[in-house]
Order: sequence, then structure tokens, then C-alpha cells
Amino acid sequence: MNYSIIRFIIGWILIFESAFMILPCIVAMIYQETDGFVYLGILVLGLLLGWILGHKRPQNKVFFAREGCATVALSWIVLSIFGSLPFIFTGAIPNPVDALFETVSGFTTTGASILSDVEALSHCNLFWRSFTHWIGGMGVLVFMLAILPMTGGSHMNLMKAESPGPSVSKFAPKVQTTAKILYLIYLALTLIQIAFLLIGKMPLFDALTITFGTAGTGGFAIKNDSITSYSPYLQNVVTIFMILFGINFSFYYILLMKKFKQAFKLSEVRTYLLIILSAVLLIAFNIRGMYSNDMGEALHHSAFQVASIITTTGYATTDFNLWPELSRTILVILMFIGACAGSTGGGIKVSRIIILVKSITKELNQFVHPKSVRKIQFDGRPLSHDTLRSVNVFMSAYFLIFMVSTILVAAFDNQDLITNFTSVATAINNVGPGLELVGPTGNFGFFSMGSKLILTFDMLAGRLEIFPLLLLFVKDTWKKF
Amino acid sequence: MNYSIIRFIIGWILIFESAFMILPCIVAMIYQETDGFVYLGILVLGLLLGWILGHKRPQNKVFFAREGCATVALSWIVLSIFGSLPFIFTGAIPNPVDALFETVSGFTTTGASILSDVEALSHCNLFWRSFTHWIGGMGVLVFMLAILPMTGGSHMNLMKAESPGPSVSKFAPKVQTTAKILYLIYLALTLIQIAFLLIGKMPLFDALTITFGTAGTGGFAIKNDSITSYSPYLQNVVTIFMILFGINFSFYYILLMKKFKQAFKLSEVRTYLLIILSAVLLIAFNIRGMYSNDMGEALHHSAFQVASIITTTGYATTDFNLWPELSRTILVILMFIGACAGSTGGGIKVSRIIILVKSITKELNQFVHPKSVRKIQFDGRPLSHDTLRSVNVFMSAYFLIFMVSTILVAAFDNQDLITNFTSVATAINNVGPGLELVGPTGNFGFFSMGSKLILTFDMLAGRLEIFPLLLLFVKDTWKKF
Repeated sequence: MNYSIIRFIIGWILIFESAFMILPCIVAMIYQETDGFVYLGILVLGLLLGWILGHKRPQNKVFFAREGCATVALSWIVLSIFGSLPFIFTGAIPNPVDALFETVSGFTTTGASILSDVEALSHCNLFWRSFTHWIGGMGVLVFMLAILPMTGGSHMNLMKAESPGPSVSKFAPKVQTTAKILYLIYLALTLIQIAFLLIGKMPLFDALTITFGTAGTGGFAIKNDSITSYSPYLQNVVTIFMILFGINFSFYYILLMKKFKQAFKLSEVRTYLLIILSAVLLIAFNIRGMYSNDMGEALHHSAFQVASIITTTGYATTDFNLWPELSRTILVILMFIGACAGSTGGGIKVSRIIILVKSITKELNQFVHPKSVRKIQFDGRPLSHDTLRSVNVFMSAYFLIFMVSTILVAAFDNQDLITNFTSVATAINNVGPGLELVGPTGNFGFFSMGSKLILTFDMLAGRLEIFPLLLLFVKDTWKKF
Repeated sequence: MNYSIIRFIIGWILIFESAFMILPCIVAMIYQETDGFVYLGILVLGLLLGWILGHKRPQNKVFFAREGCATVALSWIVLSIFGSLPFIFTGAIPNPVDALFETVSGFTTTGASILSDVEALSHCNLFWRSFTHWIGGMGVLVFMLAILPMTGGSHMNLMKAESPGPSVSKFAPKVQTTAKILYLIYLALTLIQIAFLLIGKMPLFDALTITFGTAGTGGFAIKNDSITSYSPYLQNVVTIFMILFGINFSFYYILLMKKFKQAFKLSEVRTYLLIILSAVLLIAFNIRGMYSNDMGEALHHSAFQVASIITTTGYATTDFNLWPELSRTILVILMFIGACAGSTGGGIKVSRIIILVKSITKELNQFVHPKSVRKIQFDGRPLSHDTLRSVNVFMSAYFLIFMVSTILVAAFDNQDLITNFTSVATAINNVGPGLELVGPTGNFGFFSMGSKLILTFDMLAGRLEIFPLLLLFVKDTWKKF
């Protein structure tokens, strides 16, 4: 393990995070909130700590997959711990475990909250809480890559470890250029959504925070009823942008290259949109009796909820915990499917589902034609054996962690099976709300500290796609060379 | 597709099944039940049909994996349809869909019942119902292999398709000898259990039927309260034999070869016993307050229920639906784990779980030591790439079917999520009871015809490990050559 480069990167992570804290300071100034001084203090502390760790460039430039994974996992842990300090010291969430849960939920873009009354928070706390979604959505290391000059194999290995999905698409020959393009697309989409919300007469503060939650597919809202009280126009804007942020960013890049035909042929994007369409129609049909007589309102709520859950955002316009079982079942399954790889969404990812289905049909084909040696094709290219293996191993690890977490949460808190099951599902898939006690009108505050720590681990495992986090527990990872 | 050999084998399946019906006829004679004439009539019909299909030996001896899978799937369907006729014509279960559900539940050793009052059945119906467990447990085609002389690659391909688990262990150079050894072990264990039950003063009829249900890890009982009213001694005998029938039969074969050390080194058997031990202790501790003060009764019920669920038998001595959530969660997870491969139990199988966990640790190791090329070892031998792939594909297909079935059952019947989820889980894992409405005191009678057909499919898919059944839906399977 190359410790010096890890120290260096973590130092810079702290510097970047502290720099981001200028924004809540500005918010505090505007609203004249004393909480701003807490942010200022933590900002200075972070710059100092960051400078101590990061001012000396590492001599040893060796950087393999192992270093990439460990760096990303440690960075996210440091990011979360440091990011939770304002909540603790402003007194908004005095308990450190609760504050860590809330911050991890923010950075991992889960959106599960332990707060029962978010409206009691100061503006700068609300802003920082939502802004963690925006930082976590595209990944802070990707952001650093776009700006910091680094050498060695560090770029690709960091990006591989932080980006969601079975494989990383490099748009440009240089990883740094890819990172820049990704963040520019992210920024552009964010600004467009803010504009659309402002057009619908949403206050600026709301427009910013709601957009951060949408862009990162996070789900922290600034009102206790989530998005319920906004106008249907604003809700529809959020629906559309949730779906857009759940699309693989390759799609936008290919669009920018004016290869429209190629963009709309991407099988992951097509499948993703098809799943959304089917789920919206099925649920709208299933809940049509619960809303006004025409199908309009049922479709409106169904589309919002489907988009919110499959992209693992977690905003709500209605209490879907009260919907019939078919709709609830579909929503739970959408939680697991998740958004596209290379988007800001969580879950298993549509591309992995496609690969798994293709491997089933290939196996069936092999029975019928034992001598055929066709490889699985994905978007016209044969799928490498390594990608297939990593998808399979991911699924195994995913279900193993899911199983162990569910047992532990059941052991710590004797809640009903649906609460336990969906709270783990919503954490590991970075969704936010689950069903029953953790439904859209509930929160995670009632859980014991033990369960909160398990769920915190699950949120990080889900965001970092398990292996970077698991590697921290392997002894050999820490061997010096 | 070689149709003539399929016709031939299905003919013989009918002949064998009809021959087995002599037993309920004898039971009817002893208890002087008129239902016996129905069995006699169906027996004669079966022999006639079987002779028509099976009397001409096939010219074409070509028999590949494709033929093996299709034959096994079709055989099990024919077996189930023909086996349901007595229930329909004795009027015990007049509805054909219900009768098919009950019979498939029998042959697949699930033990889920649509009957609310099994004590109302005649003795010959009860006997046949339990005997389907015994036939299905080890597999009727394995039985035929042991007796019928066949040629070509048929033996191995039939056995591969019918035997549960990721790979088939051949004890002897000839598959036929292996099949004989398997059935002899099966018969011996069955007789020993009957003896132990008779020693505990269980009536002979009860001893026979309960043993059939245990040996096949099925779970059909002949009393409405399952095993609750028998003495603790008898319950303990059932506990021990459920665990024994859930062990990989290779274990017994290696014991018979006097290689004791090798037998107790089998990693699947060790893991299986370790899981049972941990689950028994955890649940006993969790439910200790519900039974008399000392831990004895809690351990007794915990051991019985854990053995019943992990071996996918499904007998009950107490209503575990009322247990605390931790215990319920553990039981649901045990349903999925299932018994050992090469046993009569269902579920994912312990060996698959071991392989998946090993592939995770191998992946982690690969991150740390990128240049290592170690293969996964299983019982001291490297695991073939094909086995690993088939395990992964199995898991994908398994979860896909699980997901689709849950949606469909939710769509057909708007029951609570736990009922839906556990009824699919209990069907595909061939367990029997689930939780809530399908808990040990409930039954499957309330489901709509649609859900019953879905669950029937799931039971068959679970028993035949999915692919043989899925192959029937592939067009190319039916191509003549």
C-alpha cells in the first residue's frame, strides 16, 4: 500500500470540502444566521488539516487498483465525518451517530433522514445538507480529478473505484478530460433545472436545494412533506429531471458529439426508459381509484414516484406507503433495479440487469446449441469475461451484505419485517424512503444506534459498489511494500 | 430434438407412477375405502397409456443435454398431471388447478397445501399425497435409471437435469450404479426413521406418511396441526432425520466406503451443520421468553423449526409466524439458503452459497494481489470455470423468476407484502409454509387461480433448478434434426 499518496489525496479532499463550505457561509450571511460562524470555523479547521496532509507531494507514484479502492473508501469516510461536524456543532443533530447517518445519507445521495422536522433547521444547514447530494452525486474524487494535476495510474483507478456501474466509459483519451466533461454536463443540467423551477415561481433557495437533491438523485427536501406542497408544474419538472439524471451520462456525451442515432440506440437507456414507462402505467392503473376520477392525477403521482424510486432519489408527492400491494411491490423492485450505470443514481443498475438477463439467454442457448461459442454482446460489442465476472461477484456480495444487514437490523430493532427489509433495501440502493415506518412520511430516527451504523455502512457500500469498502477489511490491503 | 426417446421415457414414467399407485390401493383395502377403486381405475389407465407410449424402443439413441432437460421437465409435468387425477376423481380436491397445485407441491417436496382440513381426506388419499414427497425427493427419473436399461448419453444427462445442486457427483463409473446406490441409501434412511418412530409408539400409518414427508423434505402432514400433537421424542426424531435428509448423499456414500475422515471434511456438510447450529441458538435465545422458563422448550422448537425450514421440509411444531421479527427474518433467510446439493432438500443450496462467498473473497484478493491467478478451491479441488458460470447464471435466473412471480402474485391477489413475498419464496425454494396468511397455521387455498398457477410453476422451477423448465419455452429446443 502506498500510504503517502493516500495521505496526499485525503488532504486535498479536506481542502475541497472546506472550500465547498463557503457556500453555506454565504447562505448564513444572507439569512443572517449565527450558524454561519460554525461553518466558518470548520472551514478554517479543514483547510488547516488539509494543508498538513496534502501540501507535500508524494514521492512514490505507484498507484494500482488496490490504492484506488482504499483511497476512495477512506476519502468517503473522511468526507462524511468532516461533513457531519456542522450538524453536530450547530446543535442541529447533536448526536454524532445521527449526524454521521445524515451526512452519509447526503453524500451517498440516499436521502434517508433521522430528522422528523427538517423545517426547524437553519437555512445554511438545509443548504449544506442538500449540497452534500450534489457533491456526492457525481463523486468528489471525479471533481478533484478534473481540477488537480496527478500522475501515475491514479486517475483511472480512482475513477473506476468511484463511478457506479460495471465498467467505466472513457469519453476522451485522458481520464482528466473525461472527468471535466462529466462535471460540465452535470453542471449544465443542474443550471437548466434551476431555471425551469424558477420559471414555475419556486423561490430561489428552494430551487437550489431541490435541484441539488434531484441532480445527485438524493432526495433530501427542505419541507416536512417533501415535494407535496409544490405545484404540479414544479413536480413535473422534478419528475423529468430525476429521469434525466438517472440516464447514463455517456448518452449526453454522445448527443453532444451529434451522434444522435448512436445515442438513442444505447440499450441501457432504452431499457431504463421502457422499465419506467411500464411501471408508470401499471401503477397508475393500480391506483386509479385512489385519486380523482380521471386517470390524470394517478398518472401524475405514479410518474413522480416511479421516477423518484428507480433513480433512487426518494422525493415524494404522496404517501405511496398507502398504495395497494401491487404498486408497493413494483416500487420495492424498482429500488433494487436502480438507475443507469454512469449516472448519479444508485441500485443494482439497469446495465447489470441487462447483462444478467443476457447471460441467462446465453445459457439457454448453450443447452440447445452446445457447440456455439457466441459471446454476450452489449451495444454491439462482445462483453469481456472480466466484466461479466465482476457483475456476478458484485451481485453475490450485494445479496450477502443485504442478508447480513437485514438480520442485524432485525436483531437490534424488533420492528416489522417490511420496515427492516425496506430500510436495508433503501439504504444499500441509496433510495431514501422505504415502506411502513420508514415510508415517505416516516423517518429513520427511531432506529437504535446499532441499526443506524449498519445502515450507514450499507449506504456507503451501495454508493461505492461494495468492493472498495470491503477491501478496507482485508489484512493484506494494508501491507507496506 | 429426439422426440422418440422422450416419448419412450414418458411412457415409462407413466408405467412407474401407475405401479406406485398399487400402494394407495392396498391402503384403501386395509381401511375399506371406496376411494381405492378410483386409484385402481387410474392405475389401469396409466399402464395402458404408458404401454402405448413406451412399448416401442426408440431407434434414434441421440441424447444430449437438451434432450435431458426437456425430458425431465416434461416428465415432471406429466407426473404431476397424472398424479393429480386421484384427487380430482375421488372428489377430495375437485378443482383441477387446486389438485395440480397440491400434486406439484407433493412431487416437488414443497408441502404447501390448498387444503384447510387434511384430516377429512381418506387414508388412501393421505397416503398418496405423502408418497408423492418420497417419489419426488430423490427423483423419479433417478429411480428409473436405477432399474431401466438405457443406452446413449441418456443416463448422465437425465441425472444432471434432475439432481439438485451445481454439479453431480458420480460415485461409481456407471451412472446406473450411482443411481442404485443413491436409492439404496434413501431407502435405508427411510426404514430407519420408520423404526425410530414406531419405537416412540407412533401408529404405523402416521409413521409411514410422516417419514415420506421427512425423507423427501416435503412437509405434508396428516393432521391439521402438522407435527404439533406428537410427543417431544417423536418431534426430535423428525428433527434429526430432517437434518440427515438435508445432507449431501455423497456424505453417506463416503461413510459407507469407510472414509470417515474424508466424509467429515466435506465443506458443504460442515457449513450446513454450522448454519443450523448458529440459527438454532440465535432463535432459541430470541424466543426464550415465549416458552416455559428454562431454555429447553425454546431450544426444542427452535431446532425443529430451523431443521424444517433449512431442509425445506416445512413441518411445524408451533406457530413460528408469531415469533419475534429476528427469528422470522432468520427463518426467511434459511428458506433461501436451503439444504445441501445432492440431498432431497430445496433452496439455493449450501454449496452454491459457499461458491459465491469464495468468489467474493477471490475478487477481493485479486484487488490486493493483481497478479495472482489462483482458482477457487472446493474440497481441495479447483472449481471448474463451467461450474462457477452455471452457479452465477442460476442465481440470476432464480432472482429474475422470483421478482416476476412476486409482481404477478401481487397483481392477482392484493394480499400483504409479506404473504406475497414469502409465498413465492416458499414455493420456489420448495419449503411449504411462509409467513402471515401462508404461515404454518394457514394454507394456500385463498389464492386466485392465477397465483396458484404461478406458484405451481415456481415449485417446479425450484425443484428442477429452473433451466430444464425454461428450456421448454425456447423455440429452438423443439427443432427436429
